[in-house]
Amino acid sequence: MGEFLTEFRTETTLPAPGGQRGTEPGRPAGAPKRRGPIGTQRDGRPGPAEGEAVMLLERARAEVDPVLRDVLGSLPGPMRRIALYHFGWEQADGTPADGGSGKAIRPALVLAAAAALGGPEARAAAVRAAAAVELVHNFTLLHDDVMDRDTTRRHRPTAWTVFGVPDAILAGDALQALAMRLLAEDPHPAAPAATARLADCVVELCAGQHADTAMERRGPGEVTLDEVLAMAEAKTGALLGSACAIGGLYAGASDADVAALDAFGREAGLAFQLIDDVIGIWGDPRRTGKPVGADLAARKKSLPVVAAFTSGTPAAVELAELYARPSEEDDLDHIALTVERAGGRDWAQNQAADRMAVAMQQLARAVPDPEAAGGLLALAEFVTRRSS
Amino acid sequence: MGEFLTEFRTETTLPAPGGQRGTEPGRPAGAPKRRGPIGTQRDGRPGPAEGEAVMLLERARAEVDPVLRDVLGSLPGPMRRIALYHFGWEQADGTPADGGSGKAIRPALVLAAAAALGGPEARAAAVRAAAAVELVHNFTLLHDDVMDRDTTRRHRPTAWTVFGVPDAILAGDALQALAMRLLAEDPHPAAPAATARLADCVVELCAGQHADTAMERRGPGEVTLDEVLAMAEAKTGALLGSACAIGGLYAGASDADVAALDAFGREAGLAFQLIDDVIGIWGDPRRTGKPVGADLAARKKSLPVVAAFTSGTPAAVELAELYARPSEEDDLDHIALTVERAGGRDWAQNQAADRMAVAMQQLARAVPDPEAAGGLLALAEFVTRRSS
Repeated sequence: MGEFLTEFRTETTLPAPGGQRGTEPGRPAGAPKRRGPIGTQRDGRPGPAEGEAVMLLERARAEVDPVLRDVLGSLPGPMRRIALYHFGWEQADGTPADGGSGKAIRPALVLAAAAALGGPEARAAAVRAAAAVELVHNFTLLHDDVMDRDTTRRHRPTAWTVFGVPDAILAGDALQALAMRLLAEDPHPAAPAATARLADCVVELCAGQHADTAMERRGPGEVTLDEVLAMAEAKTGALLGSACAIGGLYAGASDADVAALDAFGREAGLAFQLIDDVIGIWGDPRRTGKPVGADLAARKKSLPVVAAFTSGTPAAVELAELYARPSEEDDLDHIALTVERAGGRDWAQNQAADRMAVAMQQLARAVPDPEAAGGLLALAEFVTRRSS
Repeated sequence: MGEFLTEFRTETTLPAPGGQRGTEPGRPAGAPKRRGPIGTQRDGRPGPAEGEAVMLLERARAEVDPVLRDVLGSLPGPMRRIALYHFGWEQADGTPADGGSGKAIRPALVLAAAAALGGPEARAAAVRAAAAVELVHNFTLLHDDVMDRDTTRRHRPTAWTVFGVPDAILAGDALQALAMRLLAEDPHPAAPAATARLADCVVELCAGQHADTAMERRGPGEVTLDEVLAMAEAKTGALLGSACAIGGLYAGASDADVAALDAFGREAGLAFQLIDDVIGIWGDPRRTGKPVGADLAARKKSLPVVAAFTSGTPAAVELAELYARPSEEDDLDHIALTVERAGGRDWAQNQAADRMAVAMQQLARAVPDPEAAGGLLALAEFVTRRSS
């Protein structure tokens, strides 16, 4: 969780949608339907909901990218170069690159929310807003990497390692400004409210990142579960919630529906973060070769770890001793087992399930028509790897 | 010029307006009226135009500060603390402070431009926009100090030295977001255009700061006068121009008048920067105790220095030798004299006068009524220290 706004750990190429593209009917939303515990192992082939999610993500990418390329192209030379590098569209020397610019989950949520409550017309009207949300996401990534001194992003050296810290800060500043300009120039009546909401979200993201860096300086035993949950909500939940809420605004949704969409995105975002933290300790069942225990080696205060620390169990005492003395001969499997024995894994998986249940309730409230809610449901299941 | 957006060198208390407050009639604008070379020595007492400028600055501060305190108060705790410290309203420990938060020249320009073309009603409507401009200015200062590693701002330790680099970056990010939210929540019909303009200005400020940091890595002989003028326009002129243009937007001004107001602010901003650079070498005639030659000791590529370097004179050759070997026994007076002999001082003062002449022409174009233009004229004279 040492990231400003967490990127998905699996940044590899999306599974090919195969023959399911466009043929997958809307699936019913409503009450949560468990098909096994969240984050359980899968066979690696896209299921029906995943197929729909992949299609929505690819479609969002295809619609938003031209807008992004257009506004990024309007930047002055040096800022443009850094931005295009960060998005994976240029190499550091300015030659074209075919790198992935992320999964477009946030733009896809904007568009799916607009479509759910306003149909294709609202969806089409929300493309600029979806691009603005993606710009804000990427602005936070640029600054996040500077603050956390992260050197790799989407399998490439981070922008600050290539262009220097000042230019990475400046490029992030410029991307935030571009996001706001995109919305300010949008004649849609929802644009001012969307701008205000996105600006509020930036403030929340900043507060979340502050909380994260502040926690890094404290011992794991000094951090409460409420604190770390609040931080994860601000860092990860806030922008997913805002994406859904902004889509709702473009569909002319009521205040109550917009609030429910925000809550849906937030809760799904928290569920995602919980699962992501589980994967950071016990590995991604969908991805071979993922180093298991990386977060433990870095002594991250991830959600399952803090849950284990605050469990009051004998295993918690043992974990505190293990965490206090990092060494190169760490037995990461043993630490992972200790977190598990202290209940950290079960807690995280149950929390994720609970959060998804709340997300589904909020979704059903905002979008009672199950068919209309299908896109948002598929995306939420995709990010939390629930689909099977 | 090592600052993102240059603050005024004289950040001390404003001269007391004395008996002139409110009694000074509007002064005629129009063609520039020279009363001696720009930046010439004065007797230290505020003259009539300075009295008017001081009144406008104090009035702007009084109107904008409540809005700023309100929006800064809405920030989450840690971000709020950093922002209030940066604005000089709190000590680092959160106790109240009575520090100066700057001269409010940019908000005063917004309000004066609105008043010049739209009267008191437009002026009152533009207060939120004026606060937004001030937030953007302060966001750039926070980030500027991080990038330039400056340790003092407004006579206090900079925010990053007190709260750390990550929190100073985050507080700056949050201030940019607050600025955009203020405008987005403003129901005035000019708000979207003002938001777009302010966002564009942020991009230009970023490009200017990039150019500045990039030039720092080059030798003074490798920098052209055009480059350094373009950089100063982006870093200093752009926000002063935007402030005037946004005021015009709130007055319902035509596109042509808004463009003329922008040009007025830009040119006045460049004149200010030229005079500020002259003061950075030869000292401020209005302020005893200002260390003369500070910019030379730091080997800054300020405008008079680049002019001297590119003059093709024998003194330029001598200057290149002096600049190449900084030492603690630098004879700064001798270097200053060499810049002067190479024509750097005359060039800067003539350029400043030319820029002010263009500024006055643009002002006369946008605001033909001399009485209505009086406030903007007084502010422009104040920042360039032309008033006597």
